[in-house]
Amino acid sequence: MADLKSKFLQVYSVLKSELLEDPAFEFTNDSRQWVERMMDYNVPGGKLNRGLSVIDSYQLLQEGRELTEDEIFLASALGWCIEWLQAFFLVLDDIMDGSHTRRGQPCWFRLPKVGMIAVNDGVVLRNHIPRILRKHFREKPYYVDLLDLFNEVEFQTASGQMIDLITTIQGEKDLSKYSLSIHRRIVQYKTAYYSFYLSVACALLMSGEELENHIDVKNLLIEMGIYFQVQDDYLDCYGNPETIGKIGTDIEDFKCSWLVVKALELSNEEQKKILYENYGKADPENVAKVKALYKELDIEGAFADYESKSYEKLTSGIEGHPSKAVQAVLKSFLGKIYKRKK
Amino acid sequence: MADLKSKFLQVYSVLKSELLEDPAFEFTNDSRQWVERMMDYNVPGGKLNRGLSVIDSYQLLQEGRELTEDEIFLASALGWCIEWLQAFFLVLDDIMDGSHTRRGQPCWFRLPKVGMIAVNDGVVLRNHIPRILRKHFREKPYYVDLLDLFNEVEFQTASGQMIDLITTIQGEKDLSKYSLSIHRRIVQYKTAYYSFYLSVACALLMSGEELENHIDVKNLLIEMGIYFQVQDDYLDCYGNPETIGKIGTDIEDFKCSWLVVKALELSNEEQKKILYENYGKADPENVAKVKALYKELDIEGAFADYESKSYEKLTSGIEGHPSKAVQAVLKSFLGKIYKRKK
Repeated sequence: MADLKSKFLQVYSVLKSELLEDPAFEFTNDSRQWVERMMDYNVPGGKLNRGLSVIDSYQLLQEGRELTEDEIFLASALGWCIEWLQAFFLVLDDIMDGSHTRRGQPCWFRLPKVGMIAVNDGVVLRNHIPRILRKHFREKPYYVDLLDLFNEVEFQTASGQMIDLITTIQGEKDLSKYSLSIHRRIVQYKTAYYSFYLSVACALLMSGEELENHIDVKNLLIEMGIYFQVQDDYLDCYGNPETIGKIGTDIEDFKCSWLVVKALELSNEEQKKILYENYGKADPENVAKVKALYKELDIEGAFADYESKSYEKLTSGIEGHPSKAVQAVLKSFLGKIYKRKK
Repeated sequence: MADLKSKFLQVYSVLKSELLEDPAFEFTNDSRQWVERMMDYNVPGGKLNRGLSVIDSYQLLQEGRELTEDEIFLASALGWCIEWLQAFFLVLDDIMDGSHTRRGQPCWFRLPKVGMIAVNDGVVLRNHIPRILRKHFREKPYYVDLLDLFNEVEFQTASGQMIDLITTIQGEKDLSKYSLSIHRRIVQYKTAYYSFYLSVACALLMSGEELENHIDVKNLLIEMGIYFQVQDDYLDCYGNPETIGKIGTDIEDFKCSWLVVKALELSNEEQKKILYENYGKADPENVAKVKALYKELDIEGAFADYESKSYEKLTSGIEGHPSKAVQAVLKSFLGKIYKRKK
C-alpha cells in the first residue's frame, strides 16, 4: 500500500513535467514556474483516496492478475485526473465560500501574490485533465468515453454546487427550503458522482467495459456517496475534533446538513421555531440550543438507524450483482466507509 | 444576413431548452430558473461575430451549394458553443478584473443576488459546451475531434489569460517586463485561437476535413487574430469613442497594449523615463504625458506601417493557398477587419 502510494506520487511528477512542456502552449519562464507552484500547492496535498481507488478498483476488476507497469501508470494517470478535478473545484469553492484554510495551509487565493488570479488558475487545472487524457489515452478505444465521462461528471458536480449555493441563499431567509429531498439532491450531484462513481467508471473503461452496462454499479456507488456525505454531516457535529482534524461549524454556517433536515422533519411547530431562531448563528448560545434540540429529537439515534439501513440495503444490492469482481470493488468501497470515525 | 442572424438566434432558444431539460441532472425549479436567467444574461448579448462566422465559413467551404436546414442547425450549434465559451471567459474575467459593466449592463457578478456564485455559473456555462456537442454531434465521425478542438482552444485561452495576469502584476513593478514578444504571445493565446481559428476549425471539421492538414490555415488565422488585437489596442487610444462604444482606459489601467510596447521599443532612455513615470496612472495629466510621447514617437505612423505590412503578408499568404474555397473563407475574415474603425 505504501508502495502503491509512492508509485502513484511518482506518476504525479511525470504528469506535471509533461504539462509544463505542453507543445500546445509556449510558456514563458515565469508562467511555467507559476503553474508548477500552483499545481504543487493544490493538486497532491489531499488524502488521494479518490485517485488511489482507480488503481485499487482496476486491480480488483482484473481478479488478482498482476498488473503491468503500463497498466499501473495508466490507472494512476486517471486517478490523478480525478485529483486534478477535485483541486479545480476546491480552488474555486474556497473563493466562493471565502474560506481561509484548506488541507492545513492557507487557501490558494489567500496567498498575497495570487488573489483573484486563482479563478483562472482553477480553470487551468481543469484544462489539464483533457491534456493528460489526450497525451496518454488518445489511441485507446475508450478515449472518447473517458472524455464524455469526465465532462458529464464535471457537469453534475457544478450543477450540484449550484443548487447548494442557491438553496443556502434561500435557506437563510427561509429554513423551510431545506428538506431531505433537496439535501439528497445536493449531495448526490455535488459529491457522489465525482467522489464515488468516477473512479470505478474509469477502472471499468480501462477494463474494456461499456458504462451503459453498469447502471446498477453507478446507482450503488451514488448511494454510497450519499451515505458518505451523511456521515460527514454527522461527524461535523458528533465526531471527535482531534480525529476528524477540524472543529465542525455546520450549525454556525447555516449548512444544509443532514442533521438539520432530519431535525426539521421530526420537529413539531414549537421545535421548528427553536431551529428557525437559532440555526446559522455564530453565538455559542444559539449553537447550544440547536444541539439541545438535536438531543431532544434523538438525531443521533436517527443517524444510527439511517446508517444500519443504508448498510443493509447496500450490502444486499452488492450481493445481488452477477460479477464477483465488481462485488469486490463495491465491497472495498463500503468497507472503507462503514462506521467510519473520520 | 438578417435572416441568418434570426435563424441563429432561434437555435439559441432550442439549445437553451435542451440544456434546461438535460437528463444528466435533476433540476429543481429554482435552479432551472437560475440557469435560464444566467444564460440569457451572459450568452446571447454580444455581436455574435464568432458564432455567425461558423455558418459563413461552412457555407463558403461548400462553394455556394445551398445548405440544408440540418446543416444550418449544426453549424449554428457549433457557433453557439463558441459564444458559450466566450461567455464563460467573460463572466470570470470580469470577476478577476473587478469590472463594472459588460455589453452595456452590469457584469453578472455585480448583480446583488449573484456575487461570487458567478464563479460557479461560469463553470456551468463552460460545461454546457460538451453537453451541446454530445447531444448533436455524438454520432458524427468528427465528434472526438470537436471535443479535442474545444479542449485545446480552451487550454490555450486560459494559458494566455494566465500570462496576461502574471505579466501585468510584474509590469506594474517593472515596465521592462512588457515587450513586443510578450504582447504577441498574450494576444495569440488569449484571443486569436478562440476568436479566429476556432470558428473556421469547426467549419472544417463539419466539412469532413482533418485539422492536421490545415496548419497553414491555422497560422494565417492566428496572424489575423493578432492583427485584430493590435487594432483593438490602437482604437482604445485613437478610435472615436462614439464609434467604438467606450472610452479607452488602457493607459490608466497599465495594460500591456501594443502601443506601449511599441513605444518602449522606440524610446531612448529619457523617453523611457517618461513612460515609467506616467504609465498606469489615473490622473489625466499622466495620461496626457503618455499620449504626448506617443505623438513624439509617431506611434500612429508605426501602427499604419504595421497595418499595411500585416495586410500585405496576410494577402500573399491567402493567395498562396491551394483551395479557392479556403481562400474565400480567409478573405472574408480579412475583409471584415482590415482598416476597421470599430
